[in-house]
Amino acid sequence: MLNQRAADLDSADPLAHVRGRFILPEDVVYLDGNSLGALPAAVPAAVEDAVHRQWGTDLIRSWNTNGWWDAPVRTGDAIGRLIGAAPGQVVAGDSTSVQLFNTLLAAARLRPGRPLLLTDPDHFPTDQYIADSVGRLLGLEVRRVPAREAAAVLAAEGDRIAVAAYAPVDYRTGELYDMAALTAAAHTAGALAHWDLCHAAGALPVRLDAIGADFAVGCGYKYLSGGPGAPAFAYLARRHQQTFDHPVTGWHGHAEPFAMSGTYTPAPGITRARLGTPPLLSLAALEAALTAYDGVDMEDVRAKSLSLTGFFQDCADELLDGLGFTMATPRDPARRGSQVALRHPEAYPLVAALVARGVIGDMRAPDLLRFGFNALYLTHADVLRAVEELRDIAISGAHRAPALQERPTVT
Amino acid sequence: MLNQRAADLDSADPLAHVRGRFILPEDVVYLDGNSLGALPAAVPAAVEDAVHRQWGTDLIRSWNTNGWWDAPVRTGDAIGRLIGAAPGQVVAGDSTSVQLFNTLLAAARLRPGRPLLLTDPDHFPTDQYIADSVGRLLGLEVRRVPAREAAAVLAAEGDRIAVAAYAPVDYRTGELYDMAALTAAAHTAGALAHWDLCHAAGALPVRLDAIGADFAVGCGYKYLSGGPGAPAFAYLARRHQQTFDHPVTGWHGHAEPFAMSGTYTPAPGITRARLGTPPLLSLAALEAALTAYDGVDMEDVRAKSLSLTGFFQDCADELLDGLGFTMATPRDPARRGSQVALRHPEAYPLVAALVARGVIGDMRAPDLLRFGFNALYLTHADVLRAVEELRDIAISGAHRAPALQERPTVT
Repeated sequence: MLNQRAADLDSADPLAHVRGRFILPEDVVYLDGNSLGALPAAVPAAVEDAVHRQWGTDLIRSWNTNGWWDAPVRTGDAIGRLIGAAPGQVVAGDSTSVQLFNTLLAAARLRPGRPLLLTDPDHFPTDQYIADSVGRLLGLEVRRVPAREAAAVLAAEGDRIAVAAYAPVDYRTGELYDMAALTAAAHTAGALAHWDLCHAAGALPVRLDAIGADFAVGCGYKYLSGGPGAPAFAYLARRHQQTFDHPVTGWHGHAEPFAMSGTYTPAPGITRARLGTPPLLSLAALEAALTAYDGVDMEDVRAKSLSLTGFFQDCADELLDGLGFTMATPRDPARRGSQVALRHPEAYPLVAALVARGVIGDMRAPDLLRFGFNALYLTHADVLRAVEELRDIAISGAHRAPALQERPTVT
Repeated sequence: MLNQRAADLDSADPLAHVRGRFILPEDVVYLDGNSLGALPAAVPAAVEDAVHRQWGTDLIRSWNTNGWWDAPVRTGDAIGRLIGAAPGQVVAGDSTSVQLFNTLLAAARLRPGRPLLLTDPDHFPTDQYIADSVGRLLGLEVRRVPAREAAAVLAAEGDRIAVAAYAPVDYRTGELYDMAALTAAAHTAGALAHWDLCHAAGALPVRLDAIGADFAVGCGYKYLSGGPGAPAFAYLARRHQQTFDHPVTGWHGHAEPFAMSGTYTPAPGITRARLGTPPLLSLAALEAALTAYDGVDMEDVRAKSLSLTGFFQDCADELLDGLGFTMATPRDPARRGSQVALRHPEAYPLVAALVARGVIGDMRAPDLLRFGFNALYLTHADVLRAVEELRDIAISGAHRAPALQERPTVT
């Protein structure tokens, strides 16, 4: 029955042809694209060209002749198309940590006299650490309020809040929050909305311009499949660009970088959010990776993603019943991102046993098995195989083998 | 005569065999390795492996199985060997701008109550912008004092100075300053010494531990030849590591990153200076590039570099006499880095004409022709050819061709 349903769903999949744009290892079901996306087929040639021809042969001339100088803004615009940002509002470069720090501090500077930063106690750790760092530098209190309570807090004491910094998708449970509502609540209070799109960009439609978001950041290596440690991105709504006053004032963001002036004069537009020299080999990979989205409608991505995650939940209901798992991810599609998380007291060895069988997910301490679904390259047959393997492991006790109990450094 | 001298010097060159570790375009004399180093022969295979096998096949498992997690510290140690830093004091990652910001702010925090930051009015623009940014965030005055006057200012009012932030080599003129003396002057005043090694790392011996430097940063893409926008590095002297209190608190620097705690607890040792996820393709290129230094003594690099730059100056004296050039770089070897700069009112078209003939240098407004010398891959014959071409252009007026007057975006 589940087999037939998987086959039917896959044969009706309007994105089925996109799977061919990725190089996937044989016999692997890759459900960790929310941590590191798979290799897009366009990447190897682009990187080889960047290494051999652009760097090796054209050398320093590539800044002009091979478009290196414009790469951060050009790649930013390509990301912008996936997150509802009109051109000229997104720049690619640096790490998510750096982009978070730089934009969050700049956002807080736009609301002087307001002593509070709001962020999520379930936010990814770096987001919390950076909020604390910005708070300390600017003398602001950082208050942790869960996403679902943030609107109420904004309504009650919003005139004291400078910035509300949240993510649309909980990185552990995959729960999806209403970006538009929280952005509106921030604005009603006169605060700014800052979004971390790491688990949303490329996974589901994001409408930054339409909902009036102020600032956003995200990484290039999860759903965007830009490669390990791919450059991050920052979104600055056009209305904030002339007042964007950021701390990491590198020369690439200068109005006249080659005047080599000793005084910083920020460039107009998004260019001022360029920080240092970008890692161009990694940026070439990211730019090539984004072509996997050519002609792809994010609404179709969302529909398929929900179909994959919903099917996973159905398979889990049927095949994992009574085996000690509980569903951590909402079943309501409106509240579900592009991942499914299960709780189980033996989460770590279960994931290790799955990986040993070629089904790659990850886990988050203490008890979450986490599966990410990239609609560009996964099938419903993949989903069924993953749950079947998990059932087989749980029933057979294969995960209790001694070799699977040892925990590596990184999981 | 000059021909014979070039041949004699090249045949006695103990580093001659190292040139084969680089892929250089035919008929090109590359004198811009102080802006973007040439392609080391070890890089293409390393990058291809990182793309195809590590990312494409091993996927997320590479964090453990292919050493991704340790790459920033492992690569940092490899750089440390070139700059006189014992293992465990250097980390690679992020851009120079970010590393500058992060370490300069942390350095200033170690000297609370001292209201001044000292930096060089001839420092690279980013260094000045970042010093201003740090000054604004911490409420410090930034005073610009030329390197050669810094020791006197430190002696006179050093008890008010938190950090002296300088570079050992002037990025325009190539003048070399005495790092040991300035570091000692800072310490006598109770201040900290912060060094930007962009134009020194890999070009000449740097003795960070021996001179007692406090913090240093540098880029990976100049003499280290790590590729366009290669990750930068930061040096934290071991004695400051436990008190290093930096602003860009990414999760990779956490004592227990995978505990995913909401509170930042910095890791012990150099690990706390890890910021965000590093761009691993670019980092793989940098790590492979550094193998070009295997078995190479930095004293030999320095000797050859001085021979190349000294020979360039001699050739210029003889061949460019009366053609409107003046020497901007000191002739005293003790005051000369690994570059030579000439002044000429037509600097830009002269450089453009040289590039058109395959002799690649660059220029800095308004009137500097700038030539960088990487001792690992240049010969004295290259030097002579460069000066001969420049002479021929200047005499013939070839640089006055209309096509060479148009200035591209980046120079």
